[in-house]
Amino acid sequence: MFADRTFSRTNYPADNHGHKDFKMIIFNSEYLKEYTIQVFVKMGCPLEQAKIAADCLNQADLRGVDSHGVARLCGYVRLWELKRLNATPEMKIMHETPSTAVLDGDLGLGLVTAPHAMQIAVEKAKIAGTGWVAVQNSNHYGIAGYHAMMALENDMIGISMTNASPLVSPTFSKSRFLGTNPIAVAIPALTQPPFVIDMATTTVANGKLEVLQRKGLDAPLGWTQDKDGNPTTDAYSLKKGGSMLPLGGDREHGGHKGYCLGAMVDIFSAVLSGANYGPWVPPFVSFLDPPKNQVGKGIGHFLGAIRIDAFRSAEDFKKDMDNWIETFRNAEPSAGQERVLIPGDPERELTIERQKNGIPLHEQVVADLKDLATRFGLNFNENPENKN
Amino acid sequence: MFADRTFSRTNYPADNHGHKDFKMIIFNSEYLKEYTIQVFVKMGCPLEQAKIAADCLNQADLRGVDSHGVARLCGYVRLWELKRLNATPEMKIMHETPSTAVLDGDLGLGLVTAPHAMQIAVEKAKIAGTGWVAVQNSNHYGIAGYHAMMALENDMIGISMTNASPLVSPTFSKSRFLGTNPIAVAIPALTQPPFVIDMATTTVANGKLEVLQRKGLDAPLGWTQDKDGNPTTDAYSLKKGGSMLPLGGDREHGGHKGYCLGAMVDIFSAVLSGANYGPWVPPFVSFLDPPKNQVGKGIGHFLGAIRIDAFRSAEDFKKDMDNWIETFRNAEPSAGQERVLIPGDPERELTIERQKNGIPLHEQVVADLKDLATRFGLNFNENPENKN
Repeated sequence: MFADRTFSRTNYPADNHGHKDFKMIIFNSEYLKEYTIQVFVKMGCPLEQAKIAADCLNQADLRGVDSHGVARLCGYVRLWELKRLNATPEMKIMHETPSTAVLDGDLGLGLVTAPHAMQIAVEKAKIAGTGWVAVQNSNHYGIAGYHAMMALENDMIGISMTNASPLVSPTFSKSRFLGTNPIAVAIPALTQPPFVIDMATTTVANGKLEVLQRKGLDAPLGWTQDKDGNPTTDAYSLKKGGSMLPLGGDREHGGHKGYCLGAMVDIFSAVLSGANYGPWVPPFVSFLDPPKNQVGKGIGHFLGAIRIDAFRSAEDFKKDMDNWIETFRNAEPSAGQERVLIPGDPERELTIERQKNGIPLHEQVVADLKDLATRFGLNFNENPENKN
Repeated sequence: MFADRTFSRTNYPADNHGHKDFKMIIFNSEYLKEYTIQVFVKMGCPLEQAKIAADCLNQADLRGVDSHGVARLCGYVRLWELKRLNATPEMKIMHETPSTAVLDGDLGLGLVTAPHAMQIAVEKAKIAGTGWVAVQNSNHYGIAGYHAMMALENDMIGISMTNASPLVSPTFSKSRFLGTNPIAVAIPALTQPPFVIDMATTTVANGKLEVLQRKGLDAPLGWTQDKDGNPTTDAYSLKKGGSMLPLGGDREHGGHKGYCLGAMVDIFSAVLSGANYGPWVPPFVSFLDPPKNQVGKGIGHFLGAIRIDAFRSAEDFKKDMDNWIETFRNAEPSAGQERVLIPGDPERELTIERQKNGIPLHEQVVADLKDLATRFGLNFNENPENKN
């Protein structure tokens, strides 16, 4: 929620810091999605899986999580080239009960394994009331919220979490042992739009640091620490061996609670599924090798579906959700604020805007997409004016 | 986790601010528990329920959450006197599926309804893999962690959350619409002690403000805001119409994520169960009337049990948890820190210490416990030296 309506959430490109001037080029959302499908198909993905994976990246771009959209496409291709990602996974349920399953993702795209796992969770919830699927042997799964929102159309609450490359330190530590480990929760309403949480368990996403770097600004205290674990306002601290701080920041501001949440996501996603946890989580970036002596398989996700009418009438629940949402939206704004937001509001509003006006891409992202066209013998129209 | 090893987490007594000197009196833990059982029995609670309720308060005292221990006993009695709490509830399952249930707590003690709900969740998990019970028509349930930890002995993960009296504002708002809405998660290990999260979804608990008041100190920014929603360091801001801030504090430091978490707890606990949510949650304190035009019944909880071997061998999981715990405990401490903690470490260590050396009670708590003895014709030994 509360996505920034700017380039600020992207962390792409990783090697472009210090450049304060760059061009943003606007693309039609559908055009980018179609192109993404073609790239995934060229990688060998079955068409249906390519469509789901492309939709997940596209939703990230529409919702303003630019770091998890088409800007990541090259990253997936590079991992595939290194055989760290399998374009034709044979996903397999390793173990199950009426309300649970463990899915082996066969090193597939998380953009494919997580929706598949969510579908299993939804089917289980139809019968058992709830469904919970832990995924091992997977890869980066895009935005957490995409998978959680899949439950909505079934009048279910969706839950989604994943572990990720270690960049975050536990409270009182300077070791990078946790990822930004996001949690997403999607809850349906009746006439109101759904309530959708999609949040990293850190104070901020990495991309915000990169925005500050480009602007030559310092970071607020509580975002990161230096390599010795001292508080810092250096926006480059992460690149100098420092680490990100869990939600809350330091101990005095409740950072130990963010550590708890990030740890919980790691355990649910990986210890419950048999994936790699903590410092052993393989990095998304292709230029870093996975840690040696793996303790599990790939990275892990945890997906859940809760059927509303397994508790009470879905109609009654959704009426109460309407009341909840209207009540909170009408809360009195603080001095200087215009309005109070409901989780999911900013992303939904940005989606409408970007569906109409297009998705702005960093010029380096555009160059990379063009390289992919050359690599795979595809057409990529760099002149997006024709496409809007 | 990370409970303070001092009086700092108590928020008792509410009317004692500005007094910087007070006496702490040490009591034997078992003696306090036995006395608590007697009081609950005098209220009319069945003995078995009185024992569970007393154990929950006692565990709070042992674990250092002094605000939720025997110091709250008078509060429960006062609510019972006002007929806002039923000592002999006829709890009833309103609706269920293989993995879910809604329990009507019949306005009973949350200290009784929540353990009952957790037991139902555990039984469902034995068959369906997981069990999830939403509770309506309940009261304050003590420490969240107590109920979550009930799952551990069954080789299950326990989850517990509750909504609470509104003292917290959504991001960008000055309305008090959420409680401190805690989340607890208990996860078993093999040779290591269990991993136990028990955290409010606010930056700090109210009791920490009261400690600062007694010391005449300011609060850090990010703990509360004033009545207009401005940042403040006034430790008395809450008493002047201000509100507590969600975990993270302001928007820049991720406070919107704490708002998301508190909102999620409210919806799971109350909208899913049919209890009161948001600003309609009835206050725990007897001197405040419940809001008019209730939208549900009582306050709500949400309890969950996840059977480990519904995912993978419990033995394998617990071995990996041992490795997880040992790895994180051996993370490199930051400059100036001695060690890295695992969620649950401080409370467990304090429990051992207090079982041996006793529980320190504020003199006003002791006076109130003595009043209860007079009220109910019980003996309360104010000379605890005899009891240790």
